[in-house]
Amino acid sequence: MRTSVVIIGGGPAGLLLGQHLNRAGIDNVILERRTRDHVLGRIRAGVLEIGTVEQMRSVGLGARMDRKGFVHDGTIISYNNDEIRIDFAVHTDRSVLVYGQTEVTRDLYEGRDADGAQTLFEVDNAVIEDATTDAPFVTFTRNDQGHRIDCDYIAGCDGFHGVSRPTIPAEVRREYEKVYPFGWLGILSETPPVHDELIYANSDAGFALCSMRNANLSRYYIQCDASDDPASWSDQAFWDELRRRIPGAYADILQTGPSIEKSIAPLRSFVCEPMQWGRLFLCGDAAHIVPPTGAKGLNTAASDVYYLANALKRHYLDADGAALAGYSERALARVWKAERFSWWMTRLLHHFPDQSAFDHKMQMAEVAFLKSNAEAQSVLAQNYVGLPY
Amino acid sequence: MRTSVVIIGGGPAGLLLGQHLNRAGIDNVILERRTRDHVLGRIRAGVLEIGTVEQMRSVGLGARMDRKGFVHDGTIISYNNDEIRIDFAVHTDRSVLVYGQTEVTRDLYEGRDADGAQTLFEVDNAVIEDATTDAPFVTFTRNDQGHRIDCDYIAGCDGFHGVSRPTIPAEVRREYEKVYPFGWLGILSETPPVHDELIYANSDAGFALCSMRNANLSRYYIQCDASDDPASWSDQAFWDELRRRIPGAYADILQTGPSIEKSIAPLRSFVCEPMQWGRLFLCGDAAHIVPPTGAKGLNTAASDVYYLANALKRHYLDADGAALAGYSERALARVWKAERFSWWMTRLLHHFPDQSAFDHKMQMAEVAFLKSNAEAQSVLAQNYVGLPY
Repeated sequence: MRTSVVIIGGGPAGLLLGQHLNRAGIDNVILERRTRDHVLGRIRAGVLEIGTVEQMRSVGLGARMDRKGFVHDGTIISYNNDEIRIDFAVHTDRSVLVYGQTEVTRDLYEGRDADGAQTLFEVDNAVIEDATTDAPFVTFTRNDQGHRIDCDYIAGCDGFHGVSRPTIPAEVRREYEKVYPFGWLGILSETPPVHDELIYANSDAGFALCSMRNANLSRYYIQCDASDDPASWSDQAFWDELRRRIPGAYADILQTGPSIEKSIAPLRSFVCEPMQWGRLFLCGDAAHIVPPTGAKGLNTAASDVYYLANALKRHYLDADGAALAGYSERALARVWKAERFSWWMTRLLHHFPDQSAFDHKMQMAEVAFLKSNAEAQSVLAQNYVGLPY
Repeated sequence: MRTSVVIIGGGPAGLLLGQHLNRAGIDNVILERRTRDHVLGRIRAGVLEIGTVEQMRSVGLGARMDRKGFVHDGTIISYNNDEIRIDFAVHTDRSVLVYGQTEVTRDLYEGRDADGAQTLFEVDNAVIEDATTDAPFVTFTRNDQGHRIDCDYIAGCDGFHGVSRPTIPAEVRREYEKVYPFGWLGILSETPPVHDELIYANSDAGFALCSMRNANLSRYYIQCDASDDPASWSDQAFWDELRRRIPGAYADILQTGPSIEKSIAPLRSFVCEPMQWGRLFLCGDAAHIVPPTGAKGLNTAASDVYYLANALKRHYLDADGAALAGYSERALARVWKAERFSWWMTRLLHHFPDQSAFDHKMQMAEVAFLKSNAEAQSVLAQNYVGLPY
């Protein structure tokens, strides 16, 4: 079996890359370790930068997103009982779109189905071979049968725990990591969102985030111990804690209901350099992780895909390999900015177990300065809506 | 003996306050523990915010400062071999003035002499009594004789180690502190400055600062171990280390010479809340310390003095006590912003012994973002020239 580009991983990064390649007539095969239903069942991010939105449109999959998504022109930063509205429209010419990753993934699979492009599910033991030669290939097993796909290039879109990154020899990789000493306990609930924009709340009791998927589906998070068991958090305990952490005006009108999903996510910053090795290119979580504060995970994967898709198109359509050669450097420049922003927002808004009273005062001074200063608000707004590609 | 306001401490904060009061005809006495020559010999900050400059002018002491000071419309942030110029003129309507604290103190003493206002030097054992009554007084010894001054108000301008702050009972005070795990080794040298603007340098070898007092008097600093002995640093070792830490274009033209002063300063962030207790008001280092990165120490003392002088004038001239009652809250709002900025610049530019490779990447991402983003440069410029009073 042979294709131009083997894409390892059938999540949103791999699917979006595949869709770009399909549009350009570049043959590709996606290998996914899990089932399609498993991938579609993952509940993840819900805020799309305009760059991500424009990519979905450019690959012909914007219709449902534009119909069902919610344009947000601002967000709320709250601290204790005070709040700051960051107005994207004042500070940028961009907005964000609230549209769940689950929906993005579904749209991408439907697009791939329509194109008749090949996706192999339940692929085990994928191994990337000869990535630094002109003739790389991928071996894997499926239904207990061994397979091999020869290709020109391999896109590693298989996430933090995938096989792609470890294919780069340890002596070539430089890995940077910070693990935060807390997690996010998140619930989904079929209730109207407490507010029509997101609320990022710093409080003495810890961080909280009020988010949503649609007019009757709310997504709320509270900072918790990373070692907590979600089952030990009753819905009532969650709602009580959330109310303590958001300004009274919101707590008073919060509508609660049974959780339909409840889980705890760890918070981590991680970057692998370089993001390419021979003919292997990493995209998204395979190369970098951000803490979810600021919603940069899916969006940074999407910017990697944008750079890689364009580089592959220039190679295949224009016989110009320069962009492929420069992929890692170009992608990382934007990745580090997203990492910085996510780290900054995480530090600004969470209670750190080892923070001193002075550290807490620095958080409060930073939000007070943010409230008073238009340019500081602009910096936040520009980063939040997404830095230019 | 009786006066309206006893000012404890004859450094720049106490002197500037005294000068404001003299201009307004409000009787005051300054008590200083050391000799006048000792105070005038202290080598400290050299960058004045426009607010500090305007205060010197408003108390009639701007002439020499305006003749001898150097207006700076920008500063350089460098990292490894790259640099960013922060243009104050583009981002603000303000500039800063390079004019040494020693000169400010000299001008203030000359002004006080001209006014014939009383300053008592070599005052020992000062004790503030009955600060929460209507009849406070200060006792002290001088030439082995006991003295007492009755007064309406006491201004504690006697620095971090002075008697004023501890006069506030421990159960009333809340103190916030961060001690940084390094110091600054500074030298004065009679050489032309390497550049006509300040250079704040982050490098893999640690922080450096190229500053100046005038066209033939340079002030340079390098980050060092807080426990280092200045005597163990030869001039040659200092210059070699400085050259390593600044961009090559500057290192190549650096003119070196014998040091005429060499000392190590620790770096500390500290704030005491509240800044008033009864009829005692704290100004400057008595209430708060910043690390020197960003030159906010003298300038933040000066903004305290501005608030306190105006509050005392409203009390004495307009019989309006509201500003005095609100002094601590008003001063602290600006103090915390200066603390935040000094902490941010310190964190951005120094090598921290315990920093991870990820932490270092965050510094590099922050300077890269700063280089790319006009609003981030504006935020730095606004803070550097001084937030409005």
